[in-house]
Amino acid sequence: RTKVQILQYIILKWTMACLVGLCTGMVGYCINMAVEYIAGYKLSQTTSFLNKSRYLIAFSILAGSNMLLVFSAAVLCAIVGPAAAGSGIPEVKAYLNGIDAPNILSPRTLLVKVFGSIGAVAGGLSVGKEGPLVHIGSCIASLLSQGGSSRYRLTWRWLRYFKNDRDRRDLVTCGAAAGVAAAFRAPVGGVLFALEEAASWWRSSLLWRAFFTSATVAIALRVAVSNCDSSSCGVFGTGGSIMFDMGVVSTTTGLSELIPVVILGVVGGCLGSFFTFLSGKILRTYASWHARHGLFAKLLQAVLVAFITSLLMFGLPWLGTCTACPTESDECPSTGLSGKYKQFTCQSGHYNDLASLLLNTNDNVIRNLFSTNTAGLYRYSSLTILLCSSFFLALITYGTAIPSGLFIPVIIIGAAYGRLVGKFMTSFGQLETLDEGVYAYLGAASLLGGSMRMTVSVCVILLELTNNLLMLPPTMLVLLISKTIGDLFNHSVYDQILHIKGLPFLVEKPEPYMKHLTVMDVCSSPPVTLSATERVGNIVEVLKLTDHNGFPVIDHSSEVPKLHGLILRSHLLVLLKKGDFSEAQFCSVDFAKPGSGKGIKIEDIELQPEQLNKFVDLHPYTNASPYTVVESMSLAKAFSMFRQLALRHLCVVPTTPEVAPILGILTRHDFMPEHVLGLYPHLKANKWNRLQIQSSL
Amino acid sequence: RTKVQILQYIILKWTMACLVGLCTGMVGYCINMAVEYIAGYKLSQTTSFLNKSRYLIAFSILAGSNMLLVFSAAVLCAIVGPAAAGSGIPEVKAYLNGIDAPNILSPRTLLVKVFGSIGAVAGGLSVGKEGPLVHIGSCIASLLSQGGSSRYRLTWRWLRYFKNDRDRRDLVTCGAAAGVAAAFRAPVGGVLFALEEAASWWRSSLLWRAFFTSATVAIALRVAVSNCDSSSCGVFGTGGSIMFDMGVVSTTTGLSELIPVVILGVVGGCLGSFFTFLSGKILRTYASWHARHGLFAKLLQAVLVAFITSLLMFGLPWLGTCTACPTESDECPSTGLSGKYKQFTCQSGHYNDLASLLLNTNDNVIRNLFSTNTAGLYRYSSLTILLCSSFFLALITYGTAIPSGLFIPVIIIGAAYGRLVGKFMTSFGQLETLDEGVYAYLGAASLLGGSMRMTVSVCVILLELTNNLLMLPPTMLVLLISKTIGDLFNHSVYDQILHIKGLPFLVEKPEPYMKHLTVMDVCSSPPVTLSATERVGNIVEVLKLTDHNGFPVIDHSSEVPKLHGLILRSHLLVLLKKGDFSEAQFCSVDFAKPGSGKGIKIEDIELQPEQLNKFVDLHPYTNASPYTVVESMSLAKAFSMFRQLALRHLCVVPTTPEVAPILGILTRHDFMPEHVLGLYPHLKANKWNRLQIQSSL
Repeated sequence: RTKVQILQYIILKWTMACLVGLCTGMVGYCINMAVEYIAGYKLSQTTSFLNKSRYLIAFSILAGSNMLLVFSAAVLCAIVGPAAAGSGIPEVKAYLNGIDAPNILSPRTLLVKVFGSIGAVAGGLSVGKEGPLVHIGSCIASLLSQGGSSRYRLTWRWLRYFKNDRDRRDLVTCGAAAGVAAAFRAPVGGVLFALEEAASWWRSSLLWRAFFTSATVAIALRVAVSNCDSSSCGVFGTGGSIMFDMGVVSTTTGLSELIPVVILGVVGGCLGSFFTFLSGKILRTYASWHARHGLFAKLLQAVLVAFITSLLMFGLPWLGTCTACPTESDECPSTGLSGKYKQFTCQSGHYNDLASLLLNTNDNVIRNLFSTNTAGLYRYSSLTILLCSSFFLALITYGTAIPSGLFIPVIIIGAAYGRLVGKFMTSFGQLETLDEGVYAYLGAASLLGGSMRMTVSVCVILLELTNNLLMLPPTMLVLLISKTIGDLFNHSVYDQILHIKGLPFLVEKPEPYMKHLTVMDVCSSPPVTLSATERVGNIVEVLKLTDHNGFPVIDHSSEVPKLHGLILRSHLLVLLKKGDFSEAQFCSVDFAKPGSGKGIKIEDIELQPEQLNKFVDLHPYTNASPYTVVESMSLAKAFSMFRQLALRHLCVVPTTPEVAPILGILTRHDFMPEHVLGLYPHLKANKWNRLQIQSSL
Repeated sequence: RTKVQILQYIILKWTMACLVGLCTGMVGYCINMAVEYIAGYKLSQTTSFLNKSRYLIAFSILAGSNMLLVFSAAVLCAIVGPAAAGSGIPEVKAYLNGIDAPNILSPRTLLVKVFGSIGAVAGGLSVGKEGPLVHIGSCIASLLSQGGSSRYRLTWRWLRYFKNDRDRRDLVTCGAAAGVAAAFRAPVGGVLFALEEAASWWRSSLLWRAFFTSATVAIALRVAVSNCDSSSCGVFGTGGSIMFDMGVVSTTTGLSELIPVVILGVVGGCLGSFFTFLSGKILRTYASWHARHGLFAKLLQAVLVAFITSLLMFGLPWLGTCTACPTESDECPSTGLSGKYKQFTCQSGHYNDLASLLLNTNDNVIRNLFSTNTAGLYRYSSLTILLCSSFFLALITYGTAIPSGLFIPVIIIGAAYGRLVGKFMTSFGQLETLDEGVYAYLGAASLLGGSMRMTVSVCVILLELTNNLLMLPPTMLVLLISKTIGDLFNHSVYDQILHIKGLPFLVEKPEPYMKHLTVMDVCSSPPVTLSATERVGNIVEVLKLTDHNGFPVIDHSSEVPKLHGLILRSHLLVLLKKGDFSEAQFCSVDFAKPGSGKGIKIEDIELQPEQLNKFVDLHPYTNASPYTVVESMSLAKAFSMFRQLALRHLCVVPTTPEVAPILGILTRHDFMPEHVLGLYPHLKANKWNRLQIQSSL
């Protein structure tokens, strides 16, 4: 490439990263604003009718608006973009693992995800916008990297430089980082999330670019927040970066805090893996129900969930009792949208603590639970009711056909149980070293660790959310314990979804039994090959008869046939489409990956009989350096190679000269445990082997 | 492996990680304490004689103790462990890249590094203990992973489970993370440092283990600090985790702060790459001087540097002027070791600002420069003198034969220039949005970015050092700018040292010209092969005549010779050492990598003539699944494979059946740019190609 092209490419790469950051930051900001406005208006109307004792109208407003919002989100999601349902993090993870499932990063999905998220979150469901924002960031990155969508005729030619999978994958990784950075206002946490959870391959150059993208998000958010009036911009932290400020708490410095931390970690790990187990069951039930009854079931279920949620939000606070406001507080009962003291049906000067925890936006619930120096603010009964209802709601909501993040519900459940444990511990007197708010925080951390099984990224995200670095050591400890406990029982909640969706995810390490197999043990029948100089008719026939994506090209010019290389189906299709087979006709851009969709199909190509009888020289279009392994190679080593080098095809060649210069082609499918164990059922992994894998994972 | 063994292995792995964390934390704590006590005693003696106006005695005490401390460090380093000189980070980086240079992680090096660091830092030199602590952490990990040192007969059999390179490398990575965690009390920063700078290969399982190790360090430090009286434990932050607390500063939230941040970033990038350039020159000069004049030169130079440092520390403050103490401050003039107001030779109630910045420990200098709400505390002249002297001292000190970290001097230089810029900017009046202390902090960040070229890890380390997450966006921005600017000029200061030391470091991506070569273009002459059933005499001869580490084993049993696999020199040596060649004699532990040192040498093996004529069947000892590439493979692809899979040997096999079943073996050496460009000088990379590499790195 020329100097100018290199410079262009570099500049474009960084401009793209910057654009992804800016767009994701802005979209995150807008979603946040929209949710604050809609939910705020809804809740203020409900409260005003409550204050007038017109309870039925108040409930109708709440339930009606919730159901309407959720219904519109569900309609959007079910009709326009079904790929936008759920959290989106497993899909992004699958894409970054090399699985190019249709539509997961399409503009449609982006659109549904943005508006569906607003509907679902503003509709009061027990869902977060954090997971969807990761998906949104990735969609934006994918859209930008292909220079718009050819399907909707929105294309920007000058942005169409990233036509290879690697550049696109890199940008999507940056997009995922930007999503977390925008969702939690945690730029470093975003980079770490992309590194720990999302990406399957990582280079230090990518670390730098993801960091740049996150920094852009942080600065964009900061500018956006600083340019809007604090009253009209909803509840934001200082500098647009801290959501749940706990900066004032000081934790004690010693061993005395270890006991509660260990208890929280163990309980959180068990609870987290139990949550994962139940959510998996429910996800399967919902999925089969949706498959049987179609669109109607999806919409009905979403509306039903919205109704149940509204019922619990409005109905449960009646179980609470009114408490007189603390004398020193001048913000009780709270009149605005936020605040720890909701009046609900109490007389003036009193508050209902259960209403503060239920009849509120999710963010405010967390803020209330994390609030410090407020020991005794919430009763045992209130926290227990919150814990049960939020656990129940999180379970029935996840799996609904709407964009639904898992972070926020998990944080609420964790904070509720943490605060409950804290209340119990401090009631013993001896263990008063930690504030109840800190217990809530550590409880949230433990449940995140126990269900999502991330360590470094969750730790940094939580610290960035709460702005207190002194809590770093206990946070690390609680996460380590809860993840370890959780891993004893099952896989992380995201891995479980990958498994339920049947996505062929390649894990990092080969299974232990793969050491005992060779590549030929799993490689199917001799591959379909093409000659280096092949009749066009044969090519068309081969493409029609098989659905392989790569074909070995055999050179018959010498006395012994020789493997020349590997040609991709997509390249053959481009060749055939052109209809003229002389080399001069093509430049490298023609073979670039198409923006979106499946590209050319063999059915769309019509060739004249005289063209079919022509011969085409495949040499110039063939990848002459495919990666190869010899037939006696151990499957485990071939797996490592396939995974580390991010291959799509791996050619198996013979050790001794035989008639066939190639014995088979290994693809992702051949390495999947399901396939290998299907062939050799006696290798079925027992519990101990699984332990071994998990321990090294 | 059996269930019990698997469980043992898992438990051991985590116990090791925990032990590494505990030991590193404790060593870091002890070094810190030792430095605080020694330097504190030295400075208090100096100060007391100063106050009595007995200047010559004061200077003699200062210079004498500095020279003595540095001399003992230099003697230790030059005689006992020359590998302990310098920062140690490049050495750790090289080890983790697969370069097993002698002694870099030996117990000797560990010992020298610990005591040498104490001497050098307490001796007032412009060096830090941070780089050495990374090296110390890695040495501890290496020592533990090999279960002690066989050389010194300190072996713990029950710790000797990690006999493969991978487990050891993993633990050393954890050790590097622990080192940073102990040095800066920045556990998350430690993990990120290990990930971004130290490790060449990374798996998410490693992330988790490194996180665990760092958490152990954090908790160990916390307990250590909480169990000691605050007066006798020197100057520690709260909870043993914050060194330079800036938690009270609030930065403005808007665009106005962008201008100073950009200016600091650009200047810091230029200054950082200039520093790197100069330090490279000086390092080469020193190295050649040391090589010519030996031990004497090393010691003389160290003592000379200590003398010059003392002279500047004591002499330059005379240039300062006395200022009356601010009326509201009750800690002026400071009586203790820390404090912003040193009296020096001033009358009571006055302070000398230059003395606060020079006649102090490095940590206190940084604390003074980062101090906020103290605009006007330091004059232009004082800051300029500090900047020049610290720049000069950092340059002449680095390359001396003592353990010397680069972080602290770079932070001092950066903070000095940042504060200078801040003073200048605020004097204009319009740009008063940032505190002078924040300028100093951002200046330090920019110089770190400009010289070390790390982004995420430096960012997190700085945040953990200063406990203010609101400074995250400007810190990110300043680091990105200074790294970009620095990369335009040269490589990072650590990469430069790797290059100067001539370590064959494998970078992440192949050079662009490698695309135009095939593996056969760089592969030397046909390899030395062994037969599958080989005469012992032949093996001995081959081992004596060559220094190859791997030999292809050819199976001649079939009609056409066939490549059976690859056998390692070390395995052959174990075979020969035993003298008996029947398979039953060996178990897998025999072939494990020896703890330290070079293992068995061929010269040490004496065989009887009748043994030499025996035949040995090499089949069971051969790795039958070596990675292979075909002769027509592009060098760039082979490089990726070699690097990604962390190989030591890569076999080149023919595409068509020929007489030889193997054409060559590629090793690390064959992929080094020096070697390739030596063979094909016309491919010499021009500036633009270099830009391309850097941009993608």
